[in-house]
Amino acid sequence: MADVKVTVLAGGVGGARFVRGLRAALESEGADITVVVNTGDDLWLSGVRLQPDIDSILYALAGVNDAERGWGRAGESERVSAELREWGAGWPWFTLGDLDLGTHLARTGWLRDGLSYTQVAERLGSRWPIGVRLLPMTDTEVDTQVVVEDGSRLHFQEWWTRHRAVLRAVRFENPGIDGATPAPGVVEAITGADVVVLAPSNPVVSIGPILSVPGIRGALGDAARVVGVSPIIGGKVVRGMADACLTAIGVETSADAVARHYGQRADGGLLDTWLVAEEDAALAPGLAAEGWDVRVEPLWMTDLERSATLARAAITD
Amino acid sequence: MADVKVTVLAGGVGGARFVRGLRAALESEGADITVVVNTGDDLWLSGVRLQPDIDSILYALAGVNDAERGWGRAGESERVSAELREWGAGWPWFTLGDLDLGTHLARTGWLRDGLSYTQVAERLGSRWPIGVRLLPMTDTEVDTQVVVEDGSRLHFQEWWTRHRAVLRAVRFENPGIDGATPAPGVVEAITGADVVVLAPSNPVVSIGPILSVPGIRGALGDAARVVGVSPIIGGKVVRGMADACLTAIGVETSADAVARHYGQRADGGLLDTWLVAEEDAALAPGLAAEGWDVRVEPLWMTDLERSATLARAAITD
Repeated sequence: MADVKVTVLAGGVGGARFVRGLRAALESEGADITVVVNTGDDLWLSGVRLQPDIDSILYALAGVNDAERGWGRAGESERVSAELREWGAGWPWFTLGDLDLGTHLARTGWLRDGLSYTQVAERLGSRWPIGVRLLPMTDTEVDTQVVVEDGSRLHFQEWWTRHRAVLRAVRFENPGIDGATPAPGVVEAITGADVVVLAPSNPVVSIGPILSVPGIRGALGDAARVVGVSPIIGGKVVRGMADACLTAIGVETSADAVARHYGQRADGGLLDTWLVAEEDAALAPGLAAEGWDVRVEPLWMTDLERSATLARAAITD
Repeated sequence: MADVKVTVLAGGVGGARFVRGLRAALESEGADITVVVNTGDDLWLSGVRLQPDIDSILYALAGVNDAERGWGRAGESERVSAELREWGAGWPWFTLGDLDLGTHLARTGWLRDGLSYTQVAERLGSRWPIGVRLLPMTDTEVDTQVVVEDGSRLHFQEWWTRHRAVLRAVRFENPGIDGATPAPGVVEAITGADVVVLAPSNPVVSIGPILSVPGIRGALGDAARVVGVSPIIGGKVVRGMADACLTAIGVETSADAVARHYGQRADGGLLDTWLVAEEDAALAPGLAAEGWDVRVEPLWMTDLERSATLARAAITD
């Protein structure tokens, strides 16, 4: 039997946990896993290019992530960052670990040498035997911007990390995304997969930008099967401040509202199947009545085994 | 009495020691010291801009330099550098301290924000009360390249640091320097000074690029007084591999050959006065016979007091 082909659309931490689980679930049988990663979180900081979602997934798959803190490298230090603060340079509120900075500098050097983001992701993915292929959603820079209530515009990272998403967002934009194309291999990874999974990542600023790259939505329409995993459990976001993002686009913070936001394929939406948490089992009948293939599963990815069980459930017909 | 105005043309370590001495010598009487710094040593490394000579002088004046090692910051670590090596990125043979990298990143961010090198130097110089004004020789990037025997061309840092100057150099070039102009304030600092000092820095790759910026040589012609301090003591370079540079341009490694390389002003050269070491006192009569104002002084800047004594001697009529 040929290896099962799975493609995951993912943001950072939630995506990383899901993909680790998927890799573990398929370890014994052989699998061809591609992760299409959101690059809307990317930023230029003091002339250096950061890609938080790419790195979160890379570090988690390599086992060098700081599991306790939930992001960055284990055993991290912040000597350079402290110096930057002394200089009054960069974004003082943005933590920049020394080990992490090594990644950023390597990436920046390669970009300045003329490599594309796809080529950079390939190099990053080759340092450790991560067992999956990492693809940026696009090779074009389309950093997410947030327009807040008073009309001003912030880089997503500034809104999210500096202001902890408390400034009321009225809209998210990815300038330049209309002219962007999917990175090489992305469309093929989606249309050629046995199953495509929308990871339990932020629907607005992680999955949203991926879906906004012209051509990706269409590729999903041609996919064999598309499964979504709810990032909302018991009416709450699992981590982060996705509720602030959902509110801004007029979507309720609930597993069924997010499902309807993605839409079911029979109605011209994206999904064949939607996984909701046991805590949200009460929502399943309503979705099922609308024709959804909705499944109730344990969605908490608190350890690798649970993540693997969830991933297995997600890719099972 | 108005403060004495001194302008020093300088490279890295030798220049730093001289300027520290000068600052100490003039501390009690008030002085207006400008240092015009070589930027030929500058380099792009993984997308980050390094300015070794600017930083050497800055750190020495701020008292945060590693005096034992002779370069870089005291208490330095190299975590980021180790990561870069793991990534196979950058120049693995180039030491990049974490604290030092903070400076480089701050600088790079400011440059990417559109600041000029002059404005960056001003910001760098304002973190600590260094008591002198640092000016880059030019705002244009004119990194020194070395053409070696087999015709290949290397960045100066690669030739100097990676190959320890053992590849026989046939010529040094600063591409773009013919179109460069002195940084704002440089010409005025030279023509308006009571005395201009050519620090005991490498005559070829430290002082040489400064003199090659169109307009600087002419400004020296208009200067009130120009004094040179020999970087050669007892027929040997004080530190580094300046002899390899001198050989490449056909100049003997001796205090009188370097003097003749700069030339005396009466003959259309640069210098009014030339300071040679006690070890080279035997060369003084020969120079004097050619009309030189040559003075024998202790040139070893082994501590601040000796550096101050030398600096005082250099600026005394």
